[in-house]
Amino acid sequence: MSEDINYKSLFIGDKSENGSTYLDELTRLVQNHLGWRKNYIPSDIPAITDNDETKKEYQDSLRRQHEVLTELDQRLRPGTIPWMSAGRYWGQMNSDTLMPSMLAYCYAMLWNSNNVALESSMATSKMEAEVGEDFAKLFDYKHGWGHITHDGSMANLEGLWYARQFKSMPLAFKEVVPDKVKGKSEWELLNMSVEDVLKILATLTPEQIDEVKAHSSRSGKNIQKLGKFIVPYTKHYSWLKALDISGVGLDQMIQIPVKSDFRMDIDKLESTIKDLAAKKIPILGVVAVVGTTEEGQVDEVDRIVKFRKEMEKQGVYFYLHVDAAYGGYGRALFKDENGNFVEYDQLADLLKKHHVFNYPVRISEHVYRGFKAIEEAESVTVDPHKMGYVPYSAGGIAIKYQAMRNVISYFAPYVFEKKTASAPDMLGSYIIGGSKAGATAAAVWAAHRTLPLNVTGYGRLVGSSIEAAQRFRNFLKKLKFNVKGKEVDVYPLDNPDFNMVDWVLKINGETSLEKTNELNEKMFDFSSMYDSHVYSNRFLTSHTIFRKDTYGDSPVPFIEKMGFTKDEWNKVGSVTLLRAAIMTPYLNDNKLFDFYSKGIAKSMEKKLNEIL
Amino acid sequence: MSEDINYKSLFIGDKSENGSTYLDELTRLVQNHLGWRKNYIPSDIPAITDNDETKKEYQDSLRRQHEVLTELDQRLRPGTIPWMSAGRYWGQMNSDTLMPSMLAYCYAMLWNSNNVALESSMATSKMEAEVGEDFAKLFDYKHGWGHITHDGSMANLEGLWYARQFKSMPLAFKEVVPDKVKGKSEWELLNMSVEDVLKILATLTPEQIDEVKAHSSRSGKNIQKLGKFIVPYTKHYSWLKALDISGVGLDQMIQIPVKSDFRMDIDKLESTIKDLAAKKIPILGVVAVVGTTEEGQVDEVDRIVKFRKEMEKQGVYFYLHVDAAYGGYGRALFKDENGNFVEYDQLADLLKKHHVFNYPVRISEHVYRGFKAIEEAESVTVDPHKMGYVPYSAGGIAIKYQAMRNVISYFAPYVFEKKTASAPDMLGSYIIGGSKAGATAAAVWAAHRTLPLNVTGYGRLVGSSIEAAQRFRNFLKKLKFNVKGKEVDVYPLDNPDFNMVDWVLKINGETSLEKTNELNEKMFDFSSMYDSHVYSNRFLTSHTIFRKDTYGDSPVPFIEKMGFTKDEWNKVGSVTLLRAAIMTPYLNDNKLFDFYSKGIAKSMEKKLNEIL
Repeated sequence: MSEDINYKSLFIGDKSENGSTYLDELTRLVQNHLGWRKNYIPSDIPAITDNDETKKEYQDSLRRQHEVLTELDQRLRPGTIPWMSAGRYWGQMNSDTLMPSMLAYCYAMLWNSNNVALESSMATSKMEAEVGEDFAKLFDYKHGWGHITHDGSMANLEGLWYARQFKSMPLAFKEVVPDKVKGKSEWELLNMSVEDVLKILATLTPEQIDEVKAHSSRSGKNIQKLGKFIVPYTKHYSWLKALDISGVGLDQMIQIPVKSDFRMDIDKLESTIKDLAAKKIPILGVVAVVGTTEEGQVDEVDRIVKFRKEMEKQGVYFYLHVDAAYGGYGRALFKDENGNFVEYDQLADLLKKHHVFNYPVRISEHVYRGFKAIEEAESVTVDPHKMGYVPYSAGGIAIKYQAMRNVISYFAPYVFEKKTASAPDMLGSYIIGGSKAGATAAAVWAAHRTLPLNVTGYGRLVGSSIEAAQRFRNFLKKLKFNVKGKEVDVYPLDNPDFNMVDWVLKINGETSLEKTNELNEKMFDFSSMYDSHVYSNRFLTSHTIFRKDTYGDSPVPFIEKMGFTKDEWNKVGSVTLLRAAIMTPYLNDNKLFDFYSKGIAKSMEKKLNEIL
Repeated sequence: MSEDINYKSLFIGDKSENGSTYLDELTRLVQNHLGWRKNYIPSDIPAITDNDETKKEYQDSLRRQHEVLTELDQRLRPGTIPWMSAGRYWGQMNSDTLMPSMLAYCYAMLWNSNNVALESSMATSKMEAEVGEDFAKLFDYKHGWGHITHDGSMANLEGLWYARQFKSMPLAFKEVVPDKVKGKSEWELLNMSVEDVLKILATLTPEQIDEVKAHSSRSGKNIQKLGKFIVPYTKHYSWLKALDISGVGLDQMIQIPVKSDFRMDIDKLESTIKDLAAKKIPILGVVAVVGTTEEGQVDEVDRIVKFRKEMEKQGVYFYLHVDAAYGGYGRALFKDENGNFVEYDQLADLLKKHHVFNYPVRISEHVYRGFKAIEEAESVTVDPHKMGYVPYSAGGIAIKYQAMRNVISYFAPYVFEKKTASAPDMLGSYIIGGSKAGATAAAVWAAHRTLPLNVTGYGRLVGSSIEAAQRFRNFLKKLKFNVKGKEVDVYPLDNPDFNMVDWVLKINGETSLEKTNELNEKMFDFSSMYDSHVYSNRFLTSHTIFRKDTYGDSPVPFIEKMGFTKDEWNKVGSVTLLRAAIMTPYLNDNKLFDFYSKGIAKSMEKKLNEIL
């Protein structure tokens, strides 16, 4: 077998090129399942008889089902988006999804297991445990653990729950087992690391652990003592909800500005933390983003990790969660066939050996380091339904130490986990969610088994989308329109860290930022998915707005490059950009890229003709 | 068309009786989708070429996919449970799921929409809005709203989030718009109803609303002031997690004992609330359960509602959430063809007219009233993946007033909701979850469109399971085994409120509760799903343990009926029961019930022979 995966065979394809494979595999699987049902205790009598089937009521109900499915079909056609298109859809984080994943879902759904408890899902719970191991390995958590979450927002909330719970444990030690933290001041207690807490827990009896947990933040006490939770301005809005829902509260949130490259300003983060520490205000946690929602940028996780080590020497500790919901699978790009994260100077050779790029793509050392340093964070969000090319909804989380889960769990570890090493008896007692489809685990499992989480599998797939983004940015940069006597230029943001491209259309000589925003809003309206003409629209994209109140002055260098003044920025206070998460896995091909980039330019020109 | 739905045509069937229908419909739908892809912008060139397909790498990857799917198949067979069996599986809340629902999921998944935002899911977001309306109608919330949640635990957490948020709003009014609550004491503020809060909100400007929300419990402030959260001992453990995660805290939980019928002791609830009020301790909220997890019992929601009205006159108010995750769809049983909740004295005629029962089943007035009174609660959990016979995972929540959602939302209502009347632009900003599969909405929608949420549809389906439970209980009551010279009797709990039966096997003359518990534990071990012999095991069930620390003395009348003394109960402190949620929709048929009940008895006897 070839070592490198050719993912082109793993999608249905924009023109249903692999449609017959999909239907053949699906039919095989469904028939297998039907056979399983038929063969289950062969002496049992069937519940539905030929006589039943002759009844009018029976036939009418069948017809009703048929009509409902036909209506579903009729409604889906105009109302959904051609994600599968190789080059017409450049909007949200969507594309065609992996066949093995969809097939596994359709198949496992017939068995309908519930991964909340091992008892209800012997097969798929083990698959989820294996996926959890995959996550842990992907982030090089040697003693880690992971599981599938309902979505990325839930994974983020769970990350915050971990942070809140761990920060509160030392205060609970003080109340329940004071000897274990003898002589420590409240400030010292509020700056104990996850490792410190785990070390003490390892010395306690199960009954003591339960008692400590009852005195932790799950009691409702002390939450407001735990300090500030720090996020970048580019955080996903689910962090607001997480702060709200968790009772930590939005008043505890501190937002760090981003620089003109839209990565968190780490200097500012450092000074903020130092200021807080000087005032003896604890820091509950910090979130770094690997793949920001609006720009696809990668925060300098390595610098945060380094800074944290320095601060630990001064007695200041904070929990670190990386929100890699979007970017997480990108880590596969840096992993060789054996799953080892290669050195930066070996990266180019690795990518070359596995034919990841067909175009001069450079992965900057900055991006490399950001990805690498995730291994030092306590927890990380990673969504299979984004760069895992798995259908909705499948989020994920990994934690650095499996033992961490005992701090949020609802059953003493000695009561459960008797059955299998890897799959806990009651997953529901270790996670935020309850019932969860075994089919989701089967879907993610099948994707991971078909495409390894290293350069040969997901590395190539994610790489193709990064390459397409870089091609597209370079294409946009050179693009110019002449419409009704006006020259329209295209300004993309600087080189993207991941696979997202944001850009602005601007009439040459236009000095009004407001009018330029209007132009781009209109272009979005003409290229959006809100109407029923989506099927015939030849270029679909999304948009984003950088506002002064969240982005500060970080967009200034960009808008100055377009020829606007800072005064204009101060007056208008926002810039509207068109935004494309480029997930299509096919555009690392010259012929295809050429075809679709020209097609897109033509479509934009046509729209400009209507707008101007 | 027949008015009454014959649900037998809507399941694949225990012996794949409708397997060919399933495969035919699935093939039709998949082919439709493949055609849609092919016809999308016909002049676009295909991304995958014949040349690609000839490559070794391409063929190897296809083979790999095939192997992975084969492994999936091999692992699912021994490792999943024959839920679909008409009469071998009597355990958790599982059974075969509805064909239209599975077909809709498999189809909509190919389009992979994300209901977090309307932009990404024009068709399926509208379906979710329609399902939300279905929920609101099911519970007679005339101004209500609802949506699909990831699961029941999330719906419960969202219910608690609503309660927390509403309880805190008056304190925020006091800070931001003090005129609106002039002269009110803190006690009065903490006892304002949801209606009162909504009335004041309707008088505020959007900016004022945002400011009030910023001062609500989402800030993190005041949460510990909001008072006690009251649940019955029979609550699902997700309520513990919800209290933990929400920052309300487990210290605020008060648990109300259940009576010997395992319904919440409302007298005790009333005295508890009166005591708290006398001490000026606010009551954040109360949870009533419609369909308890371990017994299927229905709390007297009507009495709670009546009591709340009395207390409101005394200036005491609490939020009421009904956890009807399990029982919710049962409300369809009481609704006529037009969706009207009938009077109790018309119920028997309605059920007769629609041939709901083939056996003398009596729905008690108590159960009727419990279901009816849900319309007075502020919110309710209802899980399509339980009695909706929809595959995992699909939970649900309905709220009494659509306007309530603006109190937890993250975007000002005037900014969004511009597009369609029913589906909000960003559902994700009104709910706990983020990304969510449009396919789930399609699945629930297709189930609801095929089976109306009244007596003609879900009423008949849920009714059949209630009938099977009552038949099974009566069967067990008369059952006796003679094994190795020992007589073994069967003691089911009293008449169940819903479709669950719990029972104990006991050797005649045995006075040790401990030994009896051991016998039933062993019977569970022999009938559980933990091993790979599940496929050949002829009777599968689950079990539950009533412990003194959670059930108090409520099991005493039951264990005394079995011949144990109260001293024995005090000594042992727990009783182990076998537990069957009977969801199989086929056992309202005399021949089938006879076949399977005899088969089960035989299997139990065989197991007793091995155990004793």
